[in-house]
Amino acid sequence: MRFDAISVIPEVFESYLGASILGRAQSRGIFEFHAHDLREWTHDRHRTVDDAPFGGGQGMLMMPEPIFEAVRCVSEYDQHKPYVIFFSPCGRPFDQSCAERLAHMDRIMFVCGRYEGMDERVYNLADEVISLGDYVLTGGELAALTVTDAVVRLLPGALGDSMSSVDESFSDGLLEYAQYTRPAVFEGMAVPEVLTSGDHGAVDRWRRKSAIERTALMRPDLLQTADLTPAERAFAEQAIEEHEGTAEVQK
Amino acid sequence: MRFDAISVIPEVFESYLGASILGRAQSRGIFEFHAHDLREWTHDRHRTVDDAPFGGGQGMLMMPEPIFEAVRCVSEYDQHKPYVIFFSPCGRPFDQSCAERLAHMDRIMFVCGRYEGMDERVYNLADEVISLGDYVLTGGELAALTVTDAVVRLLPGALGDSMSSVDESFSDGLLEYAQYTRPAVFEGMAVPEVLTSGDHGAVDRWRRKSAIERTALMRPDLLQTADLTPAERAFAEQAIEEHEGTAEVQK
Repeated sequence: MRFDAISVIPEVFESYLGASILGRAQSRGIFEFHAHDLREWTHDRHRTVDDAPFGGGQGMLMMPEPIFEAVRCVSEYDQHKPYVIFFSPCGRPFDQSCAERLAHMDRIMFVCGRYEGMDERVYNLADEVISLGDYVLTGGELAALTVTDAVVRLLPGALGDSMSSVDESFSDGLLEYAQYTRPAVFEGMAVPEVLTSGDHGAVDRWRRKSAIERTALMRPDLLQTADLTPAERAFAEQAIEEHEGTAEVQK
Repeated sequence: MRFDAISVIPEVFESYLGASILGRAQSRGIFEFHAHDLREWTHDRHRTVDDAPFGGGQGMLMMPEPIFEAVRCVSEYDQHKPYVIFFSPCGRPFDQSCAERLAHMDRIMFVCGRYEGMDERVYNLADEVISLGDYVLTGGELAALTVTDAVVRLLPGALGDSMSSVDESFSDGLLEYAQYTRPAVFEGMAVPEVLTSGDHGAVDRWRRKSAIERTALMRPDLLQTADLTPAERAFAEQAIEEHEGTAEVQK
């Protein structure tokens, strides 16, 4: 899979993408990532990419010309047409199902804004506008890295043999169950007994309950679309009620 | 403001934090960021930080000992007690109000997980567990950078004189209005006439309507808590109805 990113700070991508799991995936040829300096598509001495907003206001906006030119030019660098992604708080909130959909693309191009924002007309170039969440960042670069990370780890072979993207948060609409490793007792805190029992059926039941309980307490909104049996749904509701009871007592 | 991050890939932070707005803020002394290698707090020849999960399953979990030791040790590196943040899909979803709250801290410490997850007991060290969104990443490092970026840009002086964090998405519960810069006409696309009229009152009214309309169409969920007059709320509802009408016709 090929990624391209257009940015005024193209040097920030390499360090993260070269480390750890993504670095290994890149060296095994699972994906390639090309960062391009937007200023290559400017034509003045100062390599200007921004200008003041019409109508007044603080800050500078990214101008349309260099972005249109860059997207069209970089698109030609590979035979596959890129799926062009812009980032904006006005975009579609990014989630795991979006990552799964993007993992089927041959090629993704990110256009990373900086400064106060972008001229609205550039969004005509977008196949999709994504929001990473309801917060404001100084630019789109971390969003591009985040989407790349979430997508690449879903590509076949990216996580290696010892890891899995199947059994984790959101894979069945629930948060992941609580997990424990050695030592069995650490500073007086013991792992739940069932996990060291060797009874695989009991372990599976405990994990399922743990996932449902955590989702019910931390993210009850996810329960609406989670795939639960009627008995599991009753258990989730009971967990919420008990938690509210405890919270009342603590008041 | 001081940030500390504990990670097995501490080398990935510097490149992003040294660039652009954050780099300038750092060199002006607005914040400092110290990344620490978790493996410094291991005591075996292989510098092991992970182990297999109790109860079976794929992948490796981060062990509690090095993390407890690292957090306690790094806490002592500065007179201010750190506010300790872990990242997990089970955490509280990060948003702009969370960034604003964190911008008042003297010191924040991030503990960045990797591999399949962390031993559940480590969350006893957390002052707060944050989720960046409903997606799974290979580790907490991008989350730490994202929170740092969102927080630092709110610190006084970080954005410089020419930029503002006041007039932007979420500052009044709405998405930001559409923005335009030169040229006034680009490839046949003209900026809205009012923005070049010089009538500041009309510009302000157009921007307010633009913000409400975009929020209504892209993120109607935000309208519930947005600060709107009754007339503005009626306008938002009308925008949604008209959009749905158009969508019907297009089908």
